[in-house]
Amino acid sequence: MITELSEYLSSEFGIQFKNFDLLAEAFTQASYVNEHPKEHLKFYERIEFLGDAVLQLYVSEYIYQRYPELPQGKLTRLRAAMVQEKSFAAFARECHFDQYIRLGKGEEMAGARNRDSLLCDIFESFIGALYLDQGRDAVKKFIARVIFPKLDLGWFDHAVDSKTSLQEFLQRDGDVDIEYHLLSEGGTENAPEFTVNVSMDGQVIGEGTGSSKKHAEMAAAQAALKKLRQDKQ
Amino acid sequence: MITELSEYLSSEFGIQFKNFDLLAEAFTQASYVNEHPKEHLKFYERIEFLGDAVLQLYVSEYIYQRYPELPQGKLTRLRAAMVQEKSFAAFARECHFDQYIRLGKGEEMAGARNRDSLLCDIFESFIGALYLDQGRDAVKKFIARVIFPKLDLGWFDHAVDSKTSLQEFLQRDGDVDIEYHLLSEGGTENAPEFTVNVSMDGQVIGEGTGSSKKHAEMAAAQAALKKLRQDKQ
Repeated sequence: MITELSEYLSSEFGIQFKNFDLLAEAFTQASYVNEHPKEHLKFYERIEFLGDAVLQLYVSEYIYQRYPELPQGKLTRLRAAMVQEKSFAAFARECHFDQYIRLGKGEEMAGARNRDSLLCDIFESFIGALYLDQGRDAVKKFIARVIFPKLDLGWFDHAVDSKTSLQEFLQRDGDVDIEYHLLSEGGTENAPEFTVNVSMDGQVIGEGTGSSKKHAEMAAAQAALKKLRQDKQ
Repeated sequence: MITELSEYLSSEFGIQFKNFDLLAEAFTQASYVNEHPKEHLKFYERIEFLGDAVLQLYVSEYIYQRYPELPQGKLTRLRAAMVQEKSFAAFARECHFDQYIRLGKGEEMAGARNRDSLLCDIFESFIGALYLDQGRDAVKKFIARVIFPKLDLGWFDHAVDSKTSLQEFLQRDGDVDIEYHLLSEGGTENAPEFTVNVSMDGQVIGEGTGSSKKHAEMAAAQAALKKLRQDKQ
């Protein structure tokens, strides 16, 4: 199974693992080790400990560089969204890592192979093994393919407000002028309604409505982001 | 002040900072920025965000390599002891970083310069700046001087049990045979007392007493560690 995994990593990601024992360790759960006492196997937890810290640093470094105006609080929220269990489990599934985990029979029957917490652990332990075997540049290349594009796809928008996301999206390729204009102010005293549009260098790119000017601006930014991302695909 | 700091870093640590703005940012608190609005200064928080992750990784990597037999739970406890606020504040004081922080007058009066939370932040932001300006090898060299020797001095012993600490201490330079022998079992039924000694390659290096065999072994390991560390100094 480790041979298959190694071939898959090579063909899919161009990664040629040198140390197969390390790779095996990264994909082996304790339950499997316990069922094969004579093989003196190791399970993934120590490598996962390292991989967790590797991911923390390179995700932090990337968003620190990419969002030079984002204050610490928002950087922290964004990182938390990116490195959480749900995100890592999704990356592990996308990379088909679930197919290669070595599990004990009981855990297999209990459905561990599709459990977010295990998939998250395996994603971290894979990164730890990659770091030890191939070095940091290999890790950076791998997460530049698997994690960072999700920023542009809006996976982590909830962690940063839409106006900030739109600004970062538009200003990646140079300075642009982003403006919000109040189009109408209506509704009733108890249910006010504001409509706002957002323009880039004078061209309207989105419109939104909300119960306050700020909410309307957020909605306009969200609409613009959605449209821009569709156009990009 | 940044000139003085840069000269100090050069003479004391052999670190020649290239980007003085970055170094200034790492040592500037928001209160100082607010008092000097015309200078358009930046404060340390974004760099601290990065430095925190840098420290997490290189501390994790070091203890992962140094303690190849330590299970994940103990690695996590040890790392938590090493990267906590109290530890980082102590390192910052030892490096005299407190003298170089740029604070607003109110914060200065309130004694912020000697506050653990600020000193911890500054230690992290210094590491972040060092990483950005000089790269990871400079960071590893710096923490190999400032942080890792504290492991041998026993700063973090509380995070790992004494028997483990003693084993790691003795086995750093190669395999040795560590044995615990029960010397006596006495006391009363309600207050039993065990005495144990510990030997390395047949030579007794410590003795301890406790209310159980395990406690006595811990005490013996602790005594041996204390003695060995004294001899080493």
